[in-house]
Amino acid sequence: MALRHVVNLSLFGVAFAQSVRGHATMASNFVFRQLFDTKSSTYTYLLGDAESKDAVLIDPVIEHAKRDAQLVKDLNLNLKFAINTHMHADHITGTGELKKLTNCKSVISKASGAKADIHIDESDVIEFGTHKLRVFSTPGHTNGCVTYYIPEQGMAFTGDALLIRGCGRTDFQEGNSTNLYENVHGKIFSLPDETILYPAHDYKGMMSTTVDEEKRLNPRLTKSLSEFVEIMENLNLAYPKMIDKALPANKACGLYDLPEEYQT
Amino acid sequence: MALRHVVNLSLFGVAFAQSVRGHATMASNFVFRQLFDTKSSTYTYLLGDAESKDAVLIDPVIEHAKRDAQLVKDLNLNLKFAINTHMHADHITGTGELKKLTNCKSVISKASGAKADIHIDESDVIEFGTHKLRVFSTPGHTNGCVTYYIPEQGMAFTGDALLIRGCGRTDFQEGNSTNLYENVHGKIFSLPDETILYPAHDYKGMMSTTVDEEKRLNPRLTKSLSEFVEIMENLNLAYPKMIDKALPANKACGLYDLPEEYQT
Repeated sequence: MALRHVVNLSLFGVAFAQSVRGHATMASNFVFRQLFDTKSSTYTYLLGDAESKDAVLIDPVIEHAKRDAQLVKDLNLNLKFAINTHMHADHITGTGELKKLTNCKSVISKASGAKADIHIDESDVIEFGTHKLRVFSTPGHTNGCVTYYIPEQGMAFTGDALLIRGCGRTDFQEGNSTNLYENVHGKIFSLPDETILYPAHDYKGMMSTTVDEEKRLNPRLTKSLSEFVEIMENLNLAYPKMIDKALPANKACGLYDLPEEYQT
Repeated sequence: MALRHVVNLSLFGVAFAQSVRGHATMASNFVFRQLFDTKSSTYTYLLGDAESKDAVLIDPVIEHAKRDAQLVKDLNLNLKFAINTHMHADHITGTGELKKLTNCKSVISKASGAKADIHIDESDVIEFGTHKLRVFSTPGHTNGCVTYYIPEQGMAFTGDALLIRGCGRTDFQEGNSTNLYENVHGKIFSLPDETILYPAHDYKGMMSTTVDEEKRLNPRLTKSLSEFVEIMENLNLAYPKMIDKALPANKACGLYDLPEEYQT
């Protein structure tokens, strides 16, 4: 009751029309969707250019390749690249299935050691329409981890290098705590404070963070390097349950050596 | 390899600084976070004003009240209102717990029949800082369902009235298929096509949609009224497993009559 008619609604209607136009201008031709896989708690990201229709998917999951291809179609986009931030150990990448369902090319870092149509490396730029994803090499969780940064939108996709109030484990797959710490501090934390960070996973229902928040609040990465290394050495995590299926499949871009249940 | 150095990186650095500044201006003082509860597949939304620090939470879930209050604190916000889109049947609202953890007031529609500090109705406006949420009454899933619309951002929070490629069930809690159809068409679909719609739930890992997409692609609501009513009458859904715990608790804003496991 107390809130009723705080604003004159006829005036509100006018402001509304103006601000929606303003918003449409601000949003320009950038299309963005975050998607989720509940089984592995993986986030997939669709980024597109509404004019050229070119789109990219970051970290697709095999079980959702059809969902993702359908969304690309629903939004009248053409999938140009299906990209991974690294060779995942907890799920099978959707890039192989997406190559069957669309005309996309698969992309992963050269340092990952995985097959793909295109291998990227530090300072490369992936273009879709007028938009540009800049590649930062951020190894530590694995040797091939990269962060994709889209400066115009103030967004970065950090894979498992930096998670929300956490980071990827460093106890398998060439994990190296010192490298992870130095790359997060040297590269991700050097982005503008307001940069929105989108990780490959979250396990608590959080979906994004910012450079500012993680610099202030990350319980591991706000520590000194030596304290960080000690924390990472004492996590005592279980053996990753999907790793023996995921790595052989992901080495081949999710296309070959698929476990029986994924073969189509 | 093919992508390497498509853009001259020294020039890119300059463009980057400019566009990040541009983005900071565009984003203005609006803070936004989507949050998820995996158990009930419920989305919670935090909206804030970075200058006045006033914030609102839409559809908080009791199990995540501490997470949500911590995020409010991490972002240096003050929670003014904890709001529900309707009296939920699948989870217990977090509004009661949030009233204990913060100084917020609880808000729900008058038509819901639930207790709250503030009852809202059609055309009310909820203010936080310079931002305004406009209330649309959109009954059909329940009598008290509302949609919260923030015109300046081109966003609407549709609760269970409209889901992504779906809608809330209409077979319990005063459900009425004709009302739901007419309110979605008359109110939500009358918003600008580019309006981003954030539902109370999704079960397939999708997080948002737009008016345009649902007008084109919603498998139920693109049908005629009579076809829609027939579809809704033949869903044969299971009895909601949480309803007998959730409704009594939610009638009291999640504060009283809590099942034993939630009592603090």
